[in-house]
Amino acid sequence: MYSIAELQEKIQDALSCLAFNENPEELYEPINYVLLLGGKRMRPVLLLLGCDLFGGNISKAISPALGIEVFHNFTLLHDDIMDNAPLRRLKPTVHNKWNISIAILSGDAMLIEAYKLMMKVENHQLRQVMDIFNDTAILVCEGQQLDMNYETKKQVTIHDYLEMISMKTAVLLGASLQIGALISGADFKDTQHLYNFGKYLGIAFQLQDDILDVYGDKNKFGKQVGGDIISNKKTYLLLKALELEKDNNTNSLVELFNDKNIPPEEKVEAVTSIFNLLKVRDFAQEEIQSFYDKAMKEIAEINLPEDRKSVLVSFSKTLMVREI
Amino acid sequence: MYSIAELQEKIQDALSCLAFNENPEELYEPINYVLLLGGKRMRPVLLLLGCDLFGGNISKAISPALGIEVFHNFTLLHDDIMDNAPLRRLKPTVHNKWNISIAILSGDAMLIEAYKLMMKVENHQLRQVMDIFNDTAILVCEGQQLDMNYETKKQVTIHDYLEMISMKTAVLLGASLQIGALISGADFKDTQHLYNFGKYLGIAFQLQDDILDVYGDKNKFGKQVGGDIISNKKTYLLLKALELEKDNNTNSLVELFNDKNIPPEEKVEAVTSIFNLLKVRDFAQEEIQSFYDKAMKEIAEINLPEDRKSVLVSFSKTLMVREI
Repeated sequence: MYSIAELQEKIQDALSCLAFNENPEELYEPINYVLLLGGKRMRPVLLLLGCDLFGGNISKAISPALGIEVFHNFTLLHDDIMDNAPLRRLKPTVHNKWNISIAILSGDAMLIEAYKLMMKVENHQLRQVMDIFNDTAILVCEGQQLDMNYETKKQVTIHDYLEMISMKTAVLLGASLQIGALISGADFKDTQHLYNFGKYLGIAFQLQDDILDVYGDKNKFGKQVGGDIISNKKTYLLLKALELEKDNNTNSLVELFNDKNIPPEEKVEAVTSIFNLLKVRDFAQEEIQSFYDKAMKEIAEINLPEDRKSVLVSFSKTLMVREI
Repeated sequence: MYSIAELQEKIQDALSCLAFNENPEELYEPINYVLLLGGKRMRPVLLLLGCDLFGGNISKAISPALGIEVFHNFTLLHDDIMDNAPLRRLKPTVHNKWNISIAILSGDAMLIEAYKLMMKVENHQLRQVMDIFNDTAILVCEGQQLDMNYETKKQVTIHDYLEMISMKTAVLLGASLQIGALISGADFKDTQHLYNFGKYLGIAFQLQDDILDVYGDKNKFGKQVGGDIISNKKTYLLLKALELEKDNNTNSLVELFNDKNIPPEEKVEAVTSIFNLLKVRDFAQEEIQSFYDKAMKEIAEINLPEDRKSVLVSFSKTLMVREI
């Protein structure tokens, strides 16, 4: 089997050959720009990994893997407009570098290009692969809508939040693995377990992101530490803390978030102190462990030799101790 | 064969059953809203017509026909954001009634739903149908980008303009007919002629739109008469007039369009006078006739009994004498 680093290299090579050189350049330049901004390329790597796990020929999975990456970057491009984000990976976002119209239209073209790439599978696999892709793509949109709703919604439960991150982030990881496995010709039931494995791991991954945003090493973490606190984002940590404060009949967090005049650094410090007091990091860690365990149970259900499964296990472990 | 009115009714019935009732409602309500704003439903009707022409079972074409209509409305929804349009069919546009984020995301979901509907064809037709749909969808995006480019581009030729309207509008009419014909099991070559027929007719249709915008009966035409002149839109009429003025070494049009203080009604009147003087309506009419003739030549190439072809001919004639 290939190592994760080898799969990553294959994706990088394929991406650098993908450059869209069609006209009009105003449409395609932003697409090439976002695709070359970098990133861990986790989704296409998972797609190749899903194929490799079952002994498939990964050269047949390269185009759909690129399709998943183009789709993922399409969602980032449009999300950045909705979030009014000036930067992505320390570079100007497309609507910032060009304009909103170009960002909308380039994103639309990316979604279509993602479909074109995803369709590059054998005819007998086409419908199954596209059904999974369609269902996942719609869930990602629904998750993004829920995420926007939660910005203003008063009562967001931890259950709501977990459902939202599952849709917005986790299902695409599951679908990547499943599509790769289907391309290898794996049994459908096995591919469903792999989908669930990816989904549960994705939820754990996102919860870790919430922790890193507050407790990450600012020299290693790619974003501003405390960014979620500054932007009042309803993360797992905040929702858990609000829940605990409600039980304790205290409301220091609500007061902090209502205070419009508090300087950002002070707010980050004060909120982090409350998080520490309430030990919400431990609660988050427990939640992560529970999703990690669920992911491991799915692996156990897959009909594969143990040495192949161990690749998934060690990959999961790497993800769980990440610092960026 | 079914009449156009009968096909229209079938589409209306199918559309009213299509209502998306999934959650979150913030995502799906705008989709239902735009799909029920009305319209001639020309594209889905053409898809059914393409199927019916070759004796196909049109019930098998209903879902892809809805897919084409959902796709078309997705492009209108996103175009309206880019054009900053407040109204569509006399009702508030989605970004105006809700907001830009909801308009972007609902549009994205519509594009995915369009794919889901379009995929509801038999397995052996799936790849061919989806390839045409993908290629057409990308052309529509490219056409929209060219249209935006032309707003600020100094030198736009009539050739540029015809290419742009072919991509932005006409190819989708061609693809609708072709996909319908493929679903009926028609010979691929015949479906290509049908595609070309639809494309040429679509160009003629768009040129007519340019004429109607200036010379339409304001009691019948759905939009503001002279709207293109007021918004400085580079239509066929304007580009032809500019070309003729350049040949004549006059530049009264350029002066009129540079005058920022002229009241809209006065501008419409003055520009229309120049159009009349230069007889650009006649030039446009000749161009329409030439594309109409090309469309007729494509019909001649299709292997179908004359009585079936006559349906296409009479449909084309109806389109050519329209007032709205």
